[in-house]
Amino acid sequence: MSTSTQHEHATARLSSDGGPEAEANAVTVLGLGPMGQELAGAFLAAGVRTTVWNRTPGKEKELVERGAVRAASAEEAVAASELTVVCVVNYDASDAILRRDAVTDALKGRTVVNLSADTPARARDTAEWADRHGIQYLDGAIMTPAPSIGTPDAVFLHSGPRELYERHLPVLEALGGTHTHVGSEINRAAAFDVALLDIFWTAMAGYAHAVALARAEGIGARELAPFAQGIAAILPPLFEEWAGDADDGTFSGRINPLTSGASSMAHIVHASEEHGIDAGVMRAVEGWARRTIGLGHGAEGFIRVAEVLGRH
Amino acid sequence: MSTSTQHEHATARLSSDGGPEAEANAVTVLGLGPMGQELAGAFLAAGVRTTVWNRTPGKEKELVERGAVRAASAEEAVAASELTVVCVVNYDASDAILRRDAVTDALKGRTVVNLSADTPARARDTAEWADRHGIQYLDGAIMTPAPSIGTPDAVFLHSGPRELYERHLPVLEALGGTHTHVGSEINRAAAFDVALLDIFWTAMAGYAHAVALARAEGIGARELAPFAQGIAAILPPLFEEWAGDADDGTFSGRINPLTSGASSMAHIVHASEEHGIDAGVMRAVEGWARRTIGLGHGAEGFIRVAEVLGRH
Ligand SMILES: NC(=O)c1ccc[n+]([C@@H]2O[C@H](COP(=O)([O-])OP(=O)(O)OC[C@H]3O[C@@H](n4cnc5c(N)ncnc54)[C@H](OP(=O)(O)O)[C@@H]3O)[C@@H](O)[C@H]2O)c1
Ligand SMILES: NC(=O)c1ccc[n+]([C@@H]2O[C@H](COP(=O)([O-])OP(=O)(O)OC[C@H]3O[C@@H](n4cnc5c(N)ncnc54)[C@H](OP(=O)(O)O)[C@@H]3O)[C@@H](O)[C@H]2O)c1
Repeated sequence: MSTSTQHEHATARLSSDGGPEAEANAVTVLGLGPMGQELAGAFLAAGVRTTVWNRTPGKEKELVERGAVRAASAEEAVAASELTVVCVVNYDASDAILRRDAVTDALKGRTVVNLSADTPARARDTAEWADRHGIQYLDGAIMTPAPSIGTPDAVFLHSGPRELYERHLPVLEALGGTHTHVGSEINRAAAFDVALLDIFWTAMAGYAHAVALARAEGIGARELAPFAQGIAAILPPLFEEWAGDADDGTFSGRINPLTSGASSMAHIVHASEEHGIDAGVMRAVEGWARRTIGLGHGAEGFIRVAEVLGRH
Repeated sequence: MSTSTQHEHATARLSSDGGPEAEANAVTVLGLGPMGQELAGAFLAAGVRTTVWNRTPGKEKELVERGAVRAASAEEAVAASELTVVCVVNYDASDAILRRDAVTDALKGRTVVNLSADTPARARDTAEWADRHGIQYLDGAIMTPAPSIGTPDAVFLHSGPRELYERHLPVLEALGGTHTHVGSEINRAAAFDVALLDIFWTAMAGYAHAVALARAEGIGARELAPFAQGIAAILPPLFEEWAGDADDGTFSGRINPLTSGASSMAHIVHASEEHGIDAGVMRAVEGWARRTIGLGHGAEGFIRVAEVLGRH
């Protein structure tokens, strides 16, 4: 481990007072839900001095047994470290914690990394708040489930000032996995997050619906699964191909024109509704396809829909 | 054209004396859209005597140059081979072709494999029609795009009497790829087809929407693509895990409870609508999640939605 190198580096960076080494290798974690607990646990496992706080007391217990420092209040918690990582349900929750005078004052000159999920607009708003109060701010998103934290599977996206990111990266790397700085504009981590979760939850809804439809036809989910996995396997090359189409404005529907896709979608709607299964999601998907066809793009590929959705 | 050869050959079979081997290596293809043309081309390439017909004449031209036999009518076409493969836009179209007296009469005692896509109910209806008229019937679905035909990538699902499937498999294998008999109940190929296309088109809609949302935040589709591919890569193991949950009625939401997913979905809806991007699909997905939460399953996993959708 490069913790000692990281120490020295941080020491050199930090100013003259008290215990700069401990400070630089220290972190505060606000929020001890399933994700916050994993984050704090990973920091501890990497030997980082970890101060923890959660709105509802009690969740810090196991972490304190493992060496975490329990703070009695959020202001006490943020005063304990140069770097505070917040991970709560959303930005209403992080605002409720951070935007109290005592906490805002204690954060002055320090750095907050907000790993809670919310919209890009909330990230921008939080950066503005931080700027007004002399707080350094990085926004981030965690793209993998809680058990991935501390393992090579974890995926973190960060945005905000690159220099600030690089300064705190050595501590953040204690969380394992890959950390990517996706841009200095503060919205970018959240923008990637919502776009990627959009793909994830939409695909999952398709899967849950397919399981219901298959079952109504006497096919079990385990029977469907290997074929469903085959469908998942054809997505990555299509994503790449369609990304080129979307960026370049080429929308070849030679192999699979929108009209043909819309006809498939109608079959899915009918087959579902014949069984009394709600087909609201596929009805909405078909609506996008029909709207795009109605605008004269029936012979083009399905990704043409992205243009129509974004049209004002 | 070679209609006379075709006649003689058909005569030989009907008089029950000569040429059974030649008959067994013959097929009629009805429908010469992009897919029908690929099917006929693959049969020809494999040395199968191939008779072709399409509602709108002219599409058989290139196939005839490669050795296909052009039939002047659908009834003439089906009379030319023991086995007829139909591949048209849907079952309204295949009905329009097959359910004319002349064609139905000519098919008596022969086998039809319908590779057109439609609902399981239409497959059942077609099997009943075939049964009433002494026609042997297999239903099928093609899960891969037209260019895959004749290559190892092609994926065909078949359903109907297993003995009938096995009898015609040697000819069907000329189409390349993998052929799977997914059950003797006639609905099964179409049921797999709609369920798998459900996953495919829903996921694709998620991707197109994510591209629109990312772009509104200044992220290009090519920039998003590698992360989108990362999301696709986490689907197969989740599909398998959730299949077990769905079949066994275990719905652990320990790692990712429905309430947490619903909160993500709301972020996606807000982030989209802030940019004037239609979020109708995600609104419908969130509706399923909220409905399931409302039924008391908020602490369970998202796949619990499949139960609620299928509830009457
Ligand atoms: N879990 C995962 O696998 C995963 C994966 C990727 C990203 N994330 C993201 O990570 C974040 C945290 O997720 P999680 O799994 O730990 O669980 P969560 O249920 O999303 O968040 C629970 C945390 O939020 C706090 N909280 C909620 N409302 C609050 C308020 N008004 N004021 C102060 N604190 C409040 C809770 O405190 P109390 O204990 O006091 O209620 C608890 O610490 C979320 O944004 C989530 O989307 C999670
Ligand atoms: N293309 C693919 O990559 C692909 C992949 C998997 C499955 N499939 C399935 O394969 C089937 C055929 O697809 P395709 O790509 O060849 O194109 P298509 O556009 O779905 O079908 C075109 C064919 O349908 C015929 N047709 C339409 N309405 C008709 C009617 N009322 N009476 C008689 N014939 C009619 C057309 O004849 P005319 O020429 O006279 O209009 C043409 O032969 C579809 O069910 C499709 O879902 C296709």
